[in-house]
Amino acid sequence: MTDPLKPGSTIGILGGGQLGRMLSVAASRLGFKTCVFEPGGDCPASHVANFHLQAGFDDEAALIAFAESVDAITFEFENIPTAALDVLEAHRPIRPGRDALRISQDRLTEKEWLEGLGLKVAPFAPVDDMQGLTSALDRIGSPAILKTRRFGYDGKGQARIAADTDAEAALEAMNGAPAILEGMVDFSKEISVIGTRGLDGRVACFDPGENQHEGGILRRTTVPASVSHGVATDAVLIASRILTALDYVGVLGVELFVTPGGLLVNEIAPRVHNSGHWTQNGCMVDQFEQHIRAVAGWPLGDGSRHSDVVMENLIGDDMDRLPAISAEGRAALHLYGKGEARPGRKMGHVNRISG
Amino acid sequence: MTDPLKPGSTIGILGGGQLGRMLSVAASRLGFKTCVFEPGGDCPASHVANFHLQAGFDDEAALIAFAESVDAITFEFENIPTAALDVLEAHRPIRPGRDALRISQDRLTEKEWLEGLGLKVAPFAPVDDMQGLTSALDRIGSPAILKTRRFGYDGKGQARIAADTDAEAALEAMNGAPAILEGMVDFSKEISVIGTRGLDGRVACFDPGENQHEGGILRRTTVPASVSHGVATDAVLIASRILTALDYVGVLGVELFVTPGGLLVNEIAPRVHNSGHWTQNGCMVDQFEQHIRAVAGWPLGDGSRHSDVVMENLIGDDMDRLPAISAEGRAALHLYGKGEARPGRKMGHVNRISG
Repeated sequence: MTDPLKPGSTIGILGGGQLGRMLSVAASRLGFKTCVFEPGGDCPASHVANFHLQAGFDDEAALIAFAESVDAITFEFENIPTAALDVLEAHRPIRPGRDALRISQDRLTEKEWLEGLGLKVAPFAPVDDMQGLTSALDRIGSPAILKTRRFGYDGKGQARIAADTDAEAALEAMNGAPAILEGMVDFSKEISVIGTRGLDGRVACFDPGENQHEGGILRRTTVPASVSHGVATDAVLIASRILTALDYVGVLGVELFVTPGGLLVNEIAPRVHNSGHWTQNGCMVDQFEQHIRAVAGWPLGDGSRHSDVVMENLIGDDMDRLPAISAEGRAALHLYGKGEARPGRKMGHVNRISG
Repeated sequence: MTDPLKPGSTIGILGGGQLGRMLSVAASRLGFKTCVFEPGGDCPASHVANFHLQAGFDDEAALIAFAESVDAITFEFENIPTAALDVLEAHRPIRPGRDALRISQDRLTEKEWLEGLGLKVAPFAPVDDMQGLTSALDRIGSPAILKTRRFGYDGKGQARIAADTDAEAALEAMNGAPAILEGMVDFSKEISVIGTRGLDGRVACFDPGENQHEGGILRRTTVPASVSHGVATDAVLIASRILTALDYVGVLGVELFVTPGGLLVNEIAPRVHNSGHWTQNGCMVDQFEQHIRAVAGWPLGDGSRHSDVVMENLIGDDMDRLPAISAEGRAALHLYGKGEARPGRKMGHVNRISG
């Protein structure tokens, strides 16, 4: 176990979107500086980072300069090229570690790994071609969802197969990428647990939140989730088990389906998670600070919930409602500093407390 | 009344200390960028600002470049040279305005102005030389405190006169600067009100906090203050009256003495205030965001208190206690990113919630 980072140390963040932005702010609260590595200019995280290194993930010299300018490295998205990680890891610790990234970068690997841990997941089968899809549909049945194994987010890279006649179109939508067929699950709701594991192995989970999606994008997270105490406890135990099995350091998001037969793991995200944004106004220490504490080797903070919260994402032209939202009582606004409010683009969120 | 600033606009902040740092973070939450004007390098605010313009307040070209790069200007300290303000104001609005600065920069002007408003203050008299001090002591009596009229903070520029024999030493401690003699007030406690006035003239005040000082430096603020409902209401009314009389825009800190004869105004600070740091963990919208909202011409946020809080400053070698403090429950840590923990230097604070 290494020494905790001292205030004044620099934490390197791969990726400069809104998650990197809110991680930077949390790092500043603990006296850390941040350096953001992000190919795009004027990115959300750059506005609050001490330094923005603008370079591509294939720029080895830039990666080395970045690694040498920081004391520990973390990331805000899981699809970081393996070659970049190899370069970085030779110079500074990456937290969470490579295992979590390797597993969560590929839906097939992830589902197999979760099953190996004894956790329930939706029925699935790998699909590389039409023949594979046909036999997968035979086994799993339809309706089902065909998803690219890698690089999917916010419903992108997914195609629904309602009847077998949709199969060809769905496969074409994968653009030749390796895919996975997932059976539809009869679930009453989706919940998620934001868990953190410290460098010392201690685990702390925030209360489970209940998620509503629209058009494949998270719309709203409500805490507490309206599930029984037993279900909430199970969800936290599952998240803890995943964190420990991965020898994980940092925050991990675990999405779960509540079904008549118990909880199914939908997916895991090895990073701070949109469904954990409510913690900013429901807890003394939010998911961003928990992550920074873990990455810095600090003790985890107190993430117990002091208020009921409904988090609503502000997507695309939701921004037109800004004048009204900014005047609301019992509401806290969080904007990401993005320019154009394109359809489907996450521009910010609002946390409303109710208890 | 001008239009509210749109997200993506830049707010210029004069001064790069911890107050500028926390203002920058609050600005980012609302989607604003910040540019910090500060002569010192590696200052606390620079770590989270979009841009740090490092130049002196006598550098006219830099002041103009700064003003032209931002949409509105605010400040984190009141002792900004008048000549610099003249340059800036020709290019962009400064909020709060010049009147509040002019009055609060000079203890004598401030006390006279407060008296003119019908508010009670401690007995006072201007002191320019030994003759003036002698006649002031005749009028006010001792013990009393001799203070420089300008540039005092955290107990600096003050000398206590217990008996007339201390007078000469006290005057020498002023280093020839114009001074003011203030009579000692028989007060049971000091409280403060953090009030905000929007560009639309609306006023919102946070709950009064109770302050404890050590060695002339704020040590602890407790909310709610243990005063009667009537005293709390009076305090808020006094703050509101000051805000309105100044046609103020932004956050103002008002320190008050609770005495048997009612509330006395100790001093006002035309900026976010150390005794308002508790709002970060006691309210949905804290003093920093209220200030940014006002400066940006936005509606004020909901500053109602959801928790009881004790804010403790971390000063100098209090930082040695960091390992223990960082592991506390029901506590939120806020560090300022300063290097050396010199005696008397404010390094951070911790908010502890208790209700």
